[in-house]
Amino acid sequence: MSKVELEDPNYQALCEHNRETGYLISTAALLEWDQQTKMPALASEYRSEQITHLAGLIHERKTDPRVGEWLEHLVDSPLAEDPVSDSGATIRILKRDYEKRIKLPATLVMELARAASVGQTQWVAARKENDFEAFAPQLKKIFELKKAEAEAIGYAEVPYDALLDEYEPGAKTSEVAGILEALRQELVPLVAKIKASDYRPPVDILSRKFPIDQQRQLGRIASERIGFDYQQGRLDVTHHPFCTEMGPQDCRITTRYDENFFSGSFFGTLHEAGHGIYEQGLRSEYYSLPPGKFCSLGIHESQSRLWENLVGRRLSFWHYLYPQAQSLFQEALGNVSLESFYHAINHVEPSLIRVEADEATYNLHIIIRFELEQAIINGELDTNDLPEAWNEKYRRYLGIESPDVANGVLQDVHWSAGLVGYFPTYSLGNLYASQIFDAASEQLGDLDTMFQAGDFVPLKNWLNVEVHRHGQCLSGPQLGQRVTGKQLSHEALMSHLEEKLIPIYGL
Amino acid sequence: MSKVELEDPNYQALCEHNRETGYLISTAALLEWDQQTKMPALASEYRSEQITHLAGLIHERKTDPRVGEWLEHLVDSPLAEDPVSDSGATIRILKRDYEKRIKLPATLVMELARAASVGQTQWVAARKENDFEAFAPQLKKIFELKKAEAEAIGYAEVPYDALLDEYEPGAKTSEVAGILEALRQELVPLVAKIKASDYRPPVDILSRKFPIDQQRQLGRIASERIGFDYQQGRLDVTHHPFCTEMGPQDCRITTRYDENFFSGSFFGTLHEAGHGIYEQGLRSEYYSLPPGKFCSLGIHESQSRLWENLVGRRLSFWHYLYPQAQSLFQEALGNVSLESFYHAINHVEPSLIRVEADEATYNLHIIIRFELEQAIINGELDTNDLPEAWNEKYRRYLGIESPDVANGVLQDVHWSAGLVGYFPTYSLGNLYASQIFDAASEQLGDLDTMFQAGDFVPLKNWLNVEVHRHGQCLSGPQLGQRVTGKQLSHEALMSHLEEKLIPIYGL
Repeated sequence: MSKVELEDPNYQALCEHNRETGYLISTAALLEWDQQTKMPALASEYRSEQITHLAGLIHERKTDPRVGEWLEHLVDSPLAEDPVSDSGATIRILKRDYEKRIKLPATLVMELARAASVGQTQWVAARKENDFEAFAPQLKKIFELKKAEAEAIGYAEVPYDALLDEYEPGAKTSEVAGILEALRQELVPLVAKIKASDYRPPVDILSRKFPIDQQRQLGRIASERIGFDYQQGRLDVTHHPFCTEMGPQDCRITTRYDENFFSGSFFGTLHEAGHGIYEQGLRSEYYSLPPGKFCSLGIHESQSRLWENLVGRRLSFWHYLYPQAQSLFQEALGNVSLESFYHAINHVEPSLIRVEADEATYNLHIIIRFELEQAIINGELDTNDLPEAWNEKYRRYLGIESPDVANGVLQDVHWSAGLVGYFPTYSLGNLYASQIFDAASEQLGDLDTMFQAGDFVPLKNWLNVEVHRHGQCLSGPQLGQRVTGKQLSHEALMSHLEEKLIPIYGL
Repeated sequence: MSKVELEDPNYQALCEHNRETGYLISTAALLEWDQQTKMPALASEYRSEQITHLAGLIHERKTDPRVGEWLEHLVDSPLAEDPVSDSGATIRILKRDYEKRIKLPATLVMELARAASVGQTQWVAARKENDFEAFAPQLKKIFELKKAEAEAIGYAEVPYDALLDEYEPGAKTSEVAGILEALRQELVPLVAKIKASDYRPPVDILSRKFPIDQQRQLGRIASERIGFDYQQGRLDVTHHPFCTEMGPQDCRITTRYDENFFSGSFFGTLHEAGHGIYEQGLRSEYYSLPPGKFCSLGIHESQSRLWENLVGRRLSFWHYLYPQAQSLFQEALGNVSLESFYHAINHVEPSLIRVEADEATYNLHIIIRFELEQAIINGELDTNDLPEAWNEKYRRYLGIESPDVANGVLQDVHWSAGLVGYFPTYSLGNLYASQIFDAASEQLGDLDTMFQAGDFVPLKNWLNVEVHRHGQCLSGPQLGQRVTGKQLSHEALMSHLEEKLIPIYGL
């Protein structure tokens, strides 16, 4: 802390309070990580109680009236003057969070928590039974509560703004909608052209036998090489891959292995490692304070997508790594050329399931969900009409339709868990990733030459300085503008996709 | 809870308060388990901060004046009438703990914590450098603080009583000393006779090559077979094996593997599984309350020793398991007879290191430490004279002497960590184990026939009912009396050792 920071007792008290809350938040993260990775089967009931109790303590601390008093003293202090300085951002963001939190009636918070808990259980059953009707009443309830939440928080233009702001602070629905609309208008015809093309990459090679031990080795080699530090992280196996942190030097990622599919674990590991590299790049001295926290979900996703897609599906990356992959997977890849492999991992094809979608069509899955949840929150669509609206959009944007709701409108956990306004951050991540990667290329020179030599340090260090170290001092849009010199648009992502896919498919 | 329990608001509040404290205690246990087993290397600094913060919250809750108020209302209530009933024990033990805790000045608690923290660091260095002088001042300080602790808590006969009571509530120094003195007087000549015998079991077979994967398999098979439930537990690898629990159905044990030594991991796993079976046998509905907590360290150790030694080093046990061991370790054991193997795992020989000692001499290591720490606490020995006193006792009881302090007086972490009064519980465990095993044999009939058939369920179920389910409703001495019908003495252990060792060594 600077001298002026140290001299302000309110600032010190505020920061200390947040650091202590941070101990509980990071401990809760360990409880959750352990639940997914190591915990014995029968321990889940008590684990939920532990997590709930900690959540209660955290909520108590976050709504502690002293926080409001400290902030009241601080908003007009010199420490708050520059809103993007470390102290300015700390005051600004803690104030925003505190005010949002005390605006929400306790009853609404509890109702939402309960609805999400019931919702997830009902969703699992309904998806299994392929029965939308069984889930429809709870889904309606959840969306009604989310509308109430939006009203309680308040918004500038549309209720959806309030929900989006939770995950992407500083982003406006109208702006995001404009960008994704422009993306959709160019992406739909590109995907259609690919679908109509005569060429189909040899994707079957990715479904040969890839022994899990070797997959584990290659994932470890690649994630370590691009900069994920295993001295302050781990890689474990879970059904749903994720990245979490439970301390400034303790970031853990997970993946899952399928012996008969290469891409799932490999690109999943790169993806989570990208998230992890972001977490590891945050300033640890500000851990649990806004300058030491990730900017937004969109920026977080930009870091995972950058390493997974912009780097990991790039020819120069495989110039470096393919010999190692071939030697680990002699049987599967020994007779496969680098070009065939590169084509296969970049195959584009409309499919039903978002989490299995390719780099291009993935964004159409997101746009569909973004359009639908906006329509519901803003009162233009009834949740009961979701299956029909869902199918109509899949037909229109992807040219396919799910024969059932399990692989259609019920495929994602998000809405059942009360996560509304979350989906667009996935595509924002793809958009930011392309734009940031272009900026890096401009500033660092020929990245491909570096990648071919297995040298990812310059890019990682550049991201550390340009993206990671700002924490929450800048909002997503501010950070994007600063790093790339431009407002966010669909252009960089489209150029990137076209530059790669047009040659592959000979369009 | 019974109706009368439910109707007393003070009792309800007290129990609820303790249950909530239990969430924090069990969460701290996860932080510590993870630190030993999974945590990335660089995460240790923040982890200490998390643990310290939680310890602070736990201490705050345990010394909350409301606890004193609830207890004051309860001590004369009908719920407290029967001191060994669930409610009676709850009130009695929480009162004892609360009063002890508030008797200790906060400054002393903090000084002790700091001295133990510094002590452990200094001990590691001093042991590495084989330099007692480097550790002597801190060791003196720790013992001075422990004396102050004993004075603050108070005691009936000697200051050591106060410290022993922390680990073995209800035990008196004079009684424990009498029993261990009697044990020593019979054990020293037995060990000397074995040492003088011409026969030496073929112990070298245990140092053949035992592939770690197969060791893991056999440890898992055996621990599961004797009753450790992996649906509510796990087995991991750590440098120092331990057993911990972080919920009523989440008990985790650890072991370590040495490819060139069979006994370490196998008997270590049985030992920790024995601890685990005890934890899993506690009544989960009373988790974090006295009726759901382990009775004492001595009783805990009796459960680990019973399975490790009384069962695990028994011929009938190996009648059952040896064929499986031979098929897993073809190369090492394929040509070794069951008798040779049985002799080898029961070999007795005076050695320097406590944790590697055999079933018989182990108790002499403990008696030495018990006598020394008593002498220091009761003012009869200066810590600076420890090395000499240590060597003198090793010569006298075991007929050997360490050439250095690293393998002598500096070998254990306990004193450096402020654990004084802890050592005797290890031998109390061995004594209780023999006496309890004899009681089980009397009541269940021929255990050997069951063991030969791989049937350990009757013994485990008997222990559940007779030992585990009492929790802290009975003290160690009370429980021992109730289960075995006798006061604790050296006799059962000595008989057990003689019955086994005399035939093996042909004495």
